[in-house]
Amino acid sequence: MNTNYEHIKVIGFDADDTLWVNETYFRDAELAIAKLMAPYETANTIDQELFKKEIENLPLYGYGIKGFVLSMVEMAIEISNNTVSNKTISSILDIGKDMLNKPVELLDGVEETLKTLSKSHRLILITKGDLLDQERKMEKSNLTQYFHHVEVLSDKKEANYSRLLEHLNIKASQFLMVGNSLKSDILPLVNIGANAIHVPFHTTWLHEQVSEEETYKKEYQTITGLTELKKILNQHLIQS
Amino acid sequence: MNTNYEHIKVIGFDADDTLWVNETYFRDAELAIAKLMAPYETANTIDQELFKKEIENLPLYGYGIKGFVLSMVEMAIEISNNTVSNKTISSILDIGKDMLNKPVELLDGVEETLKTLSKSHRLILITKGDLLDQERKMEKSNLTQYFHHVEVLSDKKEANYSRLLEHLNIKASQFLMVGNSLKSDILPLVNIGANAIHVPFHTTWLHEQVSEEETYKKEYQTITGLTELKKILNQHLIQS
Repeated sequence: MNTNYEHIKVIGFDADDTLWVNETYFRDAELAIAKLMAPYETANTIDQELFKKEIENLPLYGYGIKGFVLSMVEMAIEISNNTVSNKTISSILDIGKDMLNKPVELLDGVEETLKTLSKSHRLILITKGDLLDQERKMEKSNLTQYFHHVEVLSDKKEANYSRLLEHLNIKASQFLMVGNSLKSDILPLVNIGANAIHVPFHTTWLHEQVSEEETYKKEYQTITGLTELKKILNQHLIQS
Repeated sequence: MNTNYEHIKVIGFDADDTLWVNETYFRDAELAIAKLMAPYETANTIDQELFKKEIENLPLYGYGIKGFVLSMVEMAIEISNNTVSNKTISSILDIGKDMLNKPVELLDGVEETLKTLSKSHRLILITKGDLLDQERKMEKSNLTQYFHHVEVLSDKKEANYSRLLEHLNIKASQFLMVGNSLKSDILPLVNIGANAIHVPFHTTWLHEQVSEEETYKKEYQTITGLTELKKILNQHLIQS
C-alpha cells in the first residue's frame, strides 16, 4: 500500500484500547456478572442477553460505564424473572464503581510515541463515551501535556468527524486518525477522505466488529503497536 | 450597578433551566420515587437520603440522568434494608428512561433572543452533564442554528471556564455568561474577571444553591427572563 503522510497536520488518537487498556475491564465485568447470575442462566445466555440490552439501550444511554451498569441491572431483573436479590443488584452497582475507579494502564510505547510526535504534529485525543470518565482517565494517564486538546464525541460516525474537521479548520487529507476500532476510528475517516492507521487491540466489543465486506478495498494501514507509528511518521519527516 | 457590555465578543449560555425546562423533571422524578418508596420511609427522609447518595456519587458519576438513576437504585436498596422489589427497581429504571425521552420545552423568549443576539455576537452553548443527553436536547430544541458551537463541560468551575476562554482565545472581559445557577454560571465567571448575567429559574437543585456570603459584593446583573437580555445588549448596540 502506498501511503503518504506528508500533508498531515493533525493526528487524532482514540483513547480506550489505543492508548490504554479498557475493553479488558468490560470483559472482566461480563465474567463477574455471569458468575453473579449463574443461578439463573448459562454464562453464554447471560452474555447474549446483556449484549442485546446494551444495544437496545444504546440510543438512550450512549457509550460508557454508567449505561452499561444500568443495562446489567435491567438484564438481571429480566433474566431472573423479577427474583434477583438486592444483594446481587448492589454487587452489579459495585462492578460499575470498580470500573470507574480502575487505574489507567498505558499500552506499550504510548508515552514515547506521543512525546516524539507532539513535536512535529498537533495531537488531539478523540474519544466517545462518558465525558467525566474520559477526563479522569486522561488525567490519570499523565498524557495531557502531549495533546492540544481532548474531543469527547457522543458517537464516532462520519458526520461527527466531518464536524470536527470543520471545527479544526483543516482538510480531510491533512488529518490522520489512529485507533483500534475499524468501525469507529478507521472506516468513517477513510470514507470522508481522511487518513487512518489501525492498531488492533486483542479484544473488540461485538458492537465494534465489522465484516470483511465493509473493509474491502478501503485504504488504511495496519500496525501492531504505537511504536511503529513513530517510525512511519519519522521516516516521512526524514525523507521530506 | 454600572454594567458595560461594550467589549463582549462571545456570549455563553447555560442550557438546562436557562433555555429549557430541566430541574422540574428531576423534581417530578423525586416525587415519583418518594411514592414508590412510601412503604419504607417518609417522603422527607427519602428526599434527604437520595440527595446524600447523589452527592456521595458525584465525584464518580458526575452530573446527568444516568448517575441520578444509579443513585436512586442504590438509595432504594439501602432504605429498604435490601427488601425492595424488582418491580420497584424496574420502575426506577423507567423513571430515568422517561426523563431521557422528555421533550424539550423552551422558556419564554428564548428563540427570539438567540436569533437577535446571534447577529451581533458569537453565541456558545455551555452545559455540564451527559454529552449524548445534551446533544439530543440541543437537536430537539431547534436552536442549533444560533450557536457557533456547543461545549459540554464535566464541571463548571473557574478552571473549566479559564480553559474555555483560553481555547476561545479571548480575554475574560470579552466574555459574558448567561445562566440560572449562581454557583455554576455566575460566580466562577465573576471570580475570573468575566461578565455574568443571572436569570433565576423557579427551582434550584440544593447542590447548586449558594449562601448570601458567597454572592456578597460580587458584580453581576440579575434579569427575570431572556427577553430582558435582548434589551440590555441591544440598548448597548444602539448607544455605541
